[in-house]
Amino acid sequence: MSNEHLIEKTVSSKTIYEGKIIDLTLHTVQLPNGKEAQREVVLHPGAVTVLALTEKDTILLVKQFRKATERVLVETPAGKLERGENPLESAKRELEEETGYVASEWKHLASFYTSPGFADELMHAYVATGLTLKQQNLDEDEFIDVFEVTADQALQMIVDGEIYDAKTLTCVYWWLRERALQGKA
Amino acid sequence: MSNEHLIEKTVSSKTIYEGKIIDLTLHTVQLPNGKEAQREVVLHPGAVTVLALTEKDTILLVKQFRKATERVLVETPAGKLERGENPLESAKRELEEETGYVASEWKHLASFYTSPGFADELMHAYVATGLTLKQQNLDEDEFIDVFEVTADQALQMIVDGEIYDAKTLTCVYWWLRERALQGKA
Repeated sequence: MSNEHLIEKTVSSKTIYEGKIIDLTLHTVQLPNGKEAQREVVLHPGAVTVLALTEKDTILLVKQFRKATERVLVETPAGKLERGENPLESAKRELEEETGYVASEWKHLASFYTSPGFADELMHAYVATGLTLKQQNLDEDEFIDVFEVTADQALQMIVDGEIYDAKTLTCVYWWLRERALQGKA
Repeated sequence: MSNEHLIEKTVSSKTIYEGKIIDLTLHTVQLPNGKEAQREVVLHPGAVTVLALTEKDTILLVKQFRKATERVLVETPAGKLERGENPLESAKRELEEETGYVASEWKHLASFYTSPGFADELMHAYVATGLTLKQQNLDEDEFIDVFEVTADQALQMIVDGEIYDAKTLTCVYWWLRERALQGKA
């Protein structure tokens, strides 16, 4: 079925803010019923995240303070795309910078919008295996702890509300399902 | 271990924009190493989403145009929290408004930040069962198609890139894992 009856056409747009990481734009749109409405849209360069599986049947997680949430969050290693950067190359770079690991095998897990109600951030998730530890190399304003968890520990952290991040839940539930299909509940 | 070595303290904050749904603030923070940095933060009221399981072993999905992404997206029913609204009450309201269904049983699935790198949006996900169809009641600026998919169809939509949204992937992978644990691969 065509989606034409759902689409909002832009009447006019203006830029409210151009920042270091995000821009904010305001759109006047024509709704499918012909009426007009306002849409606030945050523009973001896109991002990557990595489910890094070790030979010990654990995954790598990072702990970092997220100013927007005023909390330290536990997440899969992740970062923003740099201008013109290929998502897979970005994922390789971020995994090495944040954790010090490089991986010999990479597979696309999923791509998804994180907050489609107000932002265009598109996140690309990869599964990385064949890990070798090299050297962590954080940006000068990044402060990150790296650790490993088993599937049981990851599940317990979800139950306990210690994993509290959409991309991380997507990756971990994907992993837990793969394990369940293999009889490793 | 204490997280003190990760925390960024606010030095000053200013509001760049106060909008209908989001606000934009700019924070100067002191990093753990004493240096200063800027953090752009989008404030959002929070949101809910619902994995609604029917007696036919399908889930309800909605299709809607998302201006921020300039695409029609397939998502679990979702919406913003209204001021002072309890998340579970919001989930019940959104499910009925968007799909016309009410549910007799509700369970918390997970809560998560959607974009912790730049936004404080906290999403609460619920599983709803015992569905009864009443009356869809959309906001005047909402245009939504409702449909049902089986687990196989949902999985195929992920593989085909037709489900492209973090909360929906979190909910669907959770469901697929539960099914795998029950031997319903």
